[in-house]
Amino acid sequence: MIRDDNSNIMETTVDSRRVFDGIILHIDHITNRLPNGKTAAREVARHVGASAVVPVDGDGNVWLVKQFRAAVDRVLLEIPAGKLDFKGEDRLLAAKRELEEETGLTAASWIHLTDIVTTPGFSDEKISLYLARELSPGESHPDDDEFLNVVKVPLKDVVAGIMRGEIADAKTVCAVMMAWEKCR
Amino acid sequence: MIRDDNSNIMETTVDSRRVFDGIILHIDHITNRLPNGKTAAREVARHVGASAVVPVDGDGNVWLVKQFRAAVDRVLLEIPAGKLDFKGEDRLLAAKRELEEETGLTAASWIHLTDIVTTPGFSDEKISLYLARELSPGESHPDDDEFLNVVKVPLKDVVAGIMRGEIADAKTVCAVMMAWEKCR
Repeated sequence: MIRDDNSNIMETTVDSRRVFDGIILHIDHITNRLPNGKTAAREVARHVGASAVVPVDGDGNVWLVKQFRAAVDRVLLEIPAGKLDFKGEDRLLAAKRELEEETGLTAASWIHLTDIVTTPGFSDEKISLYLARELSPGESHPDDDEFLNVVKVPLKDVVAGIMRGEIADAKTVCAVMMAWEKCR
Repeated sequence: MIRDDNSNIMETTVDSRRVFDGIILHIDHITNRLPNGKTAAREVARHVGASAVVPVDGDGNVWLVKQFRAAVDRVLLEIPAGKLDFKGEDRLLAAKRELEEETGLTAASWIHLTDIVTTPGFSDEKISLYLARELSPGESHPDDDEFLNVVKVPLKDVVAGIMRGEIADAKTVCAVMMAWEKCR
């Protein structure tokens, strides 16, 4: 679907410069040569990337976390997830670490669902999504400045919540709908 | 699922300042009071928001666009979408405009699927997702610096492509999987 001939829409980068360096965000101004020969400015938020997990237990419940998200100024219901510790970190290991930190769970079965780019119009952030099953409980140990509540919800109810528009987090919608398609 | 008691995880903003003003991105440094009384710095990329559409024709095909995305330096297969012209613009009107600009299509049936926040860890970007049916063809008129190829793919094949990990764009995965759940 994607491969075919893309020569009429390709761009090439002719200049790139860092215009902002923050704590987690780094903004590059890119100048690209367009297919018509003109150039255009593109703004890109560089991000280290992340992993996220849909943990489904033997009773068909998904373990989710509720977190206050400053960027959207509200509490969101999300699958366990977290940033990579460094660019290029093994994404499955990161998923296992974040699952255990946030929920205390470990899992014997791991399936890679897909990798998503969250917002390719302005960022290179990529999140690897996993389905984890055969769960074992343990003790959670979130980061010092991370406050969250863990909730267990039947997978079918999470899907129903998504379909009613009650779950806004994009990685959660992607991963839960894919897990639902895979498990049904 | 989300409402319950969140008092133990709430944060309040005690300071906010603009640290970067770009073309489409504006970065704020926020200082939040955490549930434990400490404060923490949060970085937020402010974005105007967007609308996106899954257009499904009478033969069960989804109309998609292939675009080069500078932020991820590759061609992505996506549902038609575009930024709002201004903060607070009517999101259904924006969806109709973007569908027509990118594909030439108009639609007689519109269903709001959900609103997603693409990456709430660092941005407030919200995208409204719609399912459009009863399509009528017309002439596309993309923006001057917008180059794209329109492709028609059966909905079930798009879902299969998502499940094989071939479609990376998060809004496309969210909207197509929700349209699939709604149409099946």
